[in-house]
Amino acid sequence: MGGYRPGYTQGVRVLETLYWKDGAVHILDQTLLPGRVTYVVCRDYREVAEAIKSMRVRGAPAIGAAAAYGLAVAAQGAPGAGREEVLEAVESAAATLLATRPTAVNLRWAVKRVLARLREAEGDGDLLKRTALAEAERIHAEDVAANKRLGRFGQELVPPGARILTHCNAGALATAGYGTALGVIRAAHTAGKVARVYADETRPFLQGARLTAWELQQDGIPVTVITDNMAGYLMARGLVDLVIVGADRIAANGDVANKIGTYSLAVLAQAHALPFYVAAPLSTLDMQLACGEEIPIEERPAEEVTHCGGLRIVPEGIEVWNPAFDVTPARLVTAIITDAGVAYPPYTESLRRICCDGGA
Amino acid sequence: MGGYRPGYTQGVRVLETLYWKDGAVHILDQTLLPGRVTYVVCRDYREVAEAIKSMRVRGAPAIGAAAAYGLAVAAQGAPGAGREEVLEAVESAAATLLATRPTAVNLRWAVKRVLARLREAEGDGDLLKRTALAEAERIHAEDVAANKRLGRFGQELVPPGARILTHCNAGALATAGYGTALGVIRAAHTAGKVARVYADETRPFLQGARLTAWELQQDGIPVTVITDNMAGYLMARGLVDLVIVGADRIAANGDVANKIGTYSLAVLAQAHALPFYVAAPLSTLDMQLACGEEIPIEERPAEEVTHCGGLRIVPEGIEVWNPAFDVTPARLVTAIITDAGVAYPPYTESLRRICCDGGA
Repeated sequence: MGGYRPGYTQGVRVLETLYWKDGAVHILDQTLLPGRVTYVVCRDYREVAEAIKSMRVRGAPAIGAAAAYGLAVAAQGAPGAGREEVLEAVESAAATLLATRPTAVNLRWAVKRVLARLREAEGDGDLLKRTALAEAERIHAEDVAANKRLGRFGQELVPPGARILTHCNAGALATAGYGTALGVIRAAHTAGKVARVYADETRPFLQGARLTAWELQQDGIPVTVITDNMAGYLMARGLVDLVIVGADRIAANGDVANKIGTYSLAVLAQAHALPFYVAAPLSTLDMQLACGEEIPIEERPAEEVTHCGGLRIVPEGIEVWNPAFDVTPARLVTAIITDAGVAYPPYTESLRRICCDGGA
Repeated sequence: MGGYRPGYTQGVRVLETLYWKDGAVHILDQTLLPGRVTYVVCRDYREVAEAIKSMRVRGAPAIGAAAAYGLAVAAQGAPGAGREEVLEAVESAAATLLATRPTAVNLRWAVKRVLARLREAEGDGDLLKRTALAEAERIHAEDVAANKRLGRFGQELVPPGARILTHCNAGALATAGYGTALGVIRAAHTAGKVARVYADETRPFLQGARLTAWELQQDGIPVTVITDNMAGYLMARGLVDLVIVGADRIAANGDVANKIGTYSLAVLAQAHALPFYVAAPLSTLDMQLACGEEIPIEERPAEEVTHCGGLRIVPEGIEVWNPAFDVTPARLVTAIITDAGVAYPPYTESLRRICCDGGA
């Protein structure tokens, strides 16, 4: 388990969230950031499942790519070289990987995609092993490309001198690279339009304080960290021009599941007449779900709330609530920025156009 | 500095926030709660000032009482027994104590009250020393009585089976005893009307997680701790019936300065058509200020945000913002519960009636 990847400990500007090398998927352990840069080396799909479940890798698109690599690992570890043996090994791994986290749809999307590719591939077990890895690498590469397209579409919505509020981490670390919400911010920064980013610290897991601040710092984008409860006052003081967040699943009507606290931000943005943008690749759209109420919301262990920095902050015996996500209704979303274009209300129509016709 | 107070480490239901004993004011060090129950023993007013500044004692009414005792300490420590010597010592201490924290008006109110009483008292230095202590003890006792009255008025607004959301700690620990927002909750609980209290953890200082949860637990009131960013989703899920918070300063028009995050909660409450109540004694009213924009908002050290539980959670070199309070405009406040009755909009009239005529 773990170990520094040579060449990544000094002077590097963008870390790889995950990569394949020497028959193993290497996953950057985000629970240790920003203090330590350590990769978990997974040669067994169960190690990949553990990394997803314990949020060593997190962010909907990154989870999707990690799960795809997890299937490649499972294929390689099949007990024999026969076609059926490999397929069985991959299907068993798929069940384990799918059970890790319920809300992000990219996980299911990626697993289904690899399984479908293997089932349609004609050939022996060795071919299937190569196919699984190739498909995982394709998902990885496509996600980076999708985020860059999405970033270009999104940056057109950012005005010059923009002060942008974001929540959680929808950056390179949440994806296979570049980021969704932070992809838009990166593209807008390249276009010289970002005055400052405000990053919610994002309790309980602190992805904003630990990951978003760190990513933006490495890119030289001005960033200020605030506690989540400061967002409203920041808006009231006139210090925010727009809000942009990522998504873990978007229903067909435009309802958005994203990190807990997103809904509060959307209500606050509307109360202050600020645009509220959601940035996500097409793999985050779940056109099977009519609305957000159908999205399963993961509840995570109480310890994430009762402890902070290893210290107990809630007295023993006190009940806590720890939903990892909330659902923001489409009526609070100004636009959804995808890699196929920007969707505006009514989303039932605009998202269907994007998914089926390949364009907004 | 410090030491356990005998009899207060086991089986006690309500701790004293501060008390006078053997020529010193004993201040419960709330930065160590709930892990450790330790009193700072202050025999010098500068120790009281330090305890206020570093938030060992916090909460507007508690700060007021602590500052009053600080003046009693200063009077006792005067270099001579002459009237002028004592007055000078107290006035010098007053300047130091007033400079500790700018937002809570109770601090200024209590200091002014003790100074006025000393100036009008006829007699020598020894009399002034006794007068300062007597006035501090009166402020202390009056605050407890005010909170109990306020609690009785407020509990009438609480429906049976109420699920109440509160922010920060406006409890016994924030006052000389019983509490303001938690005073209302205590009175409503005694009346059998509280189904559950949800306590925002209240970053960055975690008064909700550390103090409110602990106080309510000791009183046997069901409490669930949430992170601040969960409040909106909790409301959207229909799990909250009303919100009640304390205040650090209330302007003549009903604008309320209170712990950072209060404004966001008030916006969320309005968006969900929930009552938003503020509970505070008359000493928190600042009728000299026309509106909330004139209330000075303290910005506290960056370390409160960059660190949690002693661990750095924001990377080195990242800017943070740390306003300790925000201002909630009167239009978002359903009612202000005081020890002289409940004020309703328009507050400019109702608060004036309460202050000048002694009743709502």
